[in-house]
Amino acid sequence: MTEAATKRRARVGHEKVGTVKIALLGGGTVGSQVARLLASSGPDLTARVGQPLELVGVAVRDLGREREGIPAELLTDDPQALVSRDDVDVVIELMGGIEPARTLILEAMAHGASVVTANKALLATHGAELADAAGDAGVDLLYEASVAGAIPLLRPLRESLSGDKVRRVLGIVNGTTNYMLTKMDEDGVAYSDVLAQAQELGYAEADPTADVEGHDSAAKAAILATLAFHTRVTIDDVYCEGITAITPSHIASARAMGFVVKLLAVAELAPDEAGVIVRVHPAMVPRNHPLASVRDAFNAVFVEAESAGEMMFYGRGAGGEPTASAVLGDLVVAARNRTNRGATHQQATYAGLEVRGMAEAKTRYMVTIEVEDQPGVLAALAKVFADNDVSIQTLRQEAQGDGAALTVRTHLAAERDLSETVNTLRQLAIVKRVGEVLRVEGEGGS
Amino acid sequence: MTEAATKRRARVGHEKVGTVKIALLGGGTVGSQVARLLASSGPDLTARVGQPLELVGVAVRDLGREREGIPAELLTDDPQALVSRDDVDVVIELMGGIEPARTLILEAMAHGASVVTANKALLATHGAELADAAGDAGVDLLYEASVAGAIPLLRPLRESLSGDKVRRVLGIVNGTTNYMLTKMDEDGVAYSDVLAQAQELGYAEADPTADVEGHDSAAKAAILATLAFHTRVTIDDVYCEGITAITPSHIASARAMGFVVKLLAVAELAPDEAGVIVRVHPAMVPRNHPLASVRDAFNAVFVEAESAGEMMFYGRGAGGEPTASAVLGDLVVAARNRTNRGATHQQATYAGLEVRGMAEAKTRYMVTIEVEDQPGVLAALAKVFADNDVSIQTLRQEAQGDGAALTVRTHLAAERDLSETVNTLRQLAIVKRVGEVLRVEGEGGS
Repeated sequence: MTEAATKRRARVGHEKVGTVKIALLGGGTVGSQVARLLASSGPDLTARVGQPLELVGVAVRDLGREREGIPAELLTDDPQALVSRDDVDVVIELMGGIEPARTLILEAMAHGASVVTANKALLATHGAELADAAGDAGVDLLYEASVAGAIPLLRPLRESLSGDKVRRVLGIVNGTTNYMLTKMDEDGVAYSDVLAQAQELGYAEADPTADVEGHDSAAKAAILATLAFHTRVTIDDVYCEGITAITPSHIASARAMGFVVKLLAVAELAPDEAGVIVRVHPAMVPRNHPLASVRDAFNAVFVEAESAGEMMFYGRGAGGEPTASAVLGDLVVAARNRTNRGATHQQATYAGLEVRGMAEAKTRYMVTIEVEDQPGVLAALAKVFADNDVSIQTLRQEAQGDGAALTVRTHLAAERDLSETVNTLRQLAIVKRVGEVLRVEGEGGS
Repeated sequence: MTEAATKRRARVGHEKVGTVKIALLGGGTVGSQVARLLASSGPDLTARVGQPLELVGVAVRDLGREREGIPAELLTDDPQALVSRDDVDVVIELMGGIEPARTLILEAMAHGASVVTANKALLATHGAELADAAGDAGVDLLYEASVAGAIPLLRPLRESLSGDKVRRVLGIVNGTTNYMLTKMDEDGVAYSDVLAQAQELGYAEADPTADVEGHDSAAKAAILATLAFHTRVTIDDVYCEGITAITPSHIASARAMGFVVKLLAVAELAPDEAGVIVRVHPAMVPRNHPLASVRDAFNAVFVEAESAGEMMFYGRGAGGEPTASAVLGDLVVAARNRTNRGATHQQATYAGLEVRGMAEAKTRYMVTIEVEDQPGVLAALAKVFADNDVSIQTLRQEAQGDGAALTVRTHLAAERDLSETVNTLRQLAIVKRVGEVLRVEGEGGS
């Protein structure tokens, strides 16, 4: 524990904190909403915490800009000075990005403040460092808003399921790509058109890379996996494939088979249960699976636990208000702990499972293959699957010009065997083209 | 704080508790699962709590019966002696019913033990007394398993949404009736046949009253409402209507309009926002609403909050294993608090909203009416709705023998106006019969 933190804890120990003082880093959409809700819900929040809450400062980049809901006298462009104040009880970090957010949070904790943040990128890279610093300082580090915005998800994973064993987490955690895939599925719009549409509506940014390449989902997958499996997982551990290669033809193939294509964040125990595999990629989900009905910009996380069975958390994943709601929920918990001298149990990583690569994942594939129409083709193809230990579940053949189009769905097989199968197929003389290749998730027994 | 509790807290304050000692009241399905999981997940639980957990006694009614998973030497038929032991840290109550569960829990708390319970009937009647006793003794009272079994729901309501304002909770919280309604909808089976089927499968008890009359849902509605609205609500405050009157013809009418019939537990702010209304009754839900896809014995709770928007929690509502998972989650939290000298914030009822009667609820109705086919009938009917301030949303008329069958759907209206409308319709000479009357929930803007 740092000296400042010790001093502060000692002070807190002697008398209950009076007003809980709050500093806000960042005055953007979410920050303004938080300031507004703090002002408008004052009496309710006071009742919930047992003490009044007071916003004492808001650090912003541009002091000149007027910000709705934030009194001008609270604004400062010196975040460093704000987090170093000894009278601040809780720092809310909503700047985003790695630096200076990381340094400011560490500084705030060293001065004895609890921290509430929505910064998924930071948590997915430096989560362990921040959790350790919170533990050392005896303060809270809460980040419900970092994954699936308003959906209460991290607290249930950390607390309610703490007596169970999670086997698998399947999440739709990026609203932009889910909106795009929903439109492609329901209106048959092509990728580039739906991207333009999403940008126009403000669902997608001018540079959509973080969303469409899956990086945003990967950061959230790392945070979910860390909590669900009590094992430190960073964004670098996450296999990541985005939706840029998804075509109307993928969507149509999936639809014809009763599936819908979703960008999934998957965290699961390795088949030998001694490791964890974390991956983000598009996948076909059966239409009667609860995740299939998650449309537009909604998020949902489906959890399979040993005793509890299957459960799903569904709600709004983004937006200023929903995210501010999650931030305020964390703030109330941190403020209560502050007045009760407690601290929320930090992320426990005692399990320390090995983080395994994608090659060890077991999935199902759907592969479309265009072949010459000649005797022995099916036997040759089937042999490739069998040679690679991949068992075929269903096979559909349609005539196509002078050849044939085959759609193969496989049983559960090792990712490396599946990818080896596809590579070999591509080299066969009788194969004109390997078309769509898509993983399948959410089928019974997977 | 009682003397024993003070003594205990003092002892705890001086040195960290070593092994966390657990007493179990009840050795039925859930109790045996809890004992089994405690034994099999020992090392994991120890890591999560930071201390080993030890089951020190299990109180059962019949000492003679062998119980799988529970060592015989732990069994006792003297629960009173078990809860009075000064070395017990957490008492898990799984006996059910009001007495002796209530007295034993109060006794356990007076001796300084935290309590984990799944007893919805007790919480829905004496929740306030138990919460006060927990507060006085400075111990935890946790009951995640009491509503919607394995779905982490109460903790998110109490903590994650503590910075938001809940407007409405819509829950499918009884698996038996949801299984029955699913079968009636999907297979067209009649009520009495599906009840027999459910009893055969063990989904319904020999005496199904508590489920089919809605009493079980009403107890859960009271618990949900208390947490969501920070206001004390008991089962006596809940308007309650079961599914015994639901016929294939209700289901068919709903289906024809794109709806499905569900038994809903609804807790909502009164229209003037100064009161809360809690009700359980069958309702038509649009098929594209997330609650409509909750099939068979699954449970789900849909929450509408001011900032967070709509969210849903879905999972298994009953069964030994799912319920045991929820109990163990609470046990880990209570044990952690025990070793960290903290306590979970008890149910806050500072809001103290007035609990209003059903008459003040605003709902929509679907009413089928058989009428004579004569001029002026429609005008006469429309006048009854208008006279009672009920606005008609859609009206469908079909010829039926020498008369006509009308299906009317209304806009949102006060429950008392709707019921007055139906009463007046029944007295009209031109009305041969008022057929199905069903409330509609989950439509846009409701």
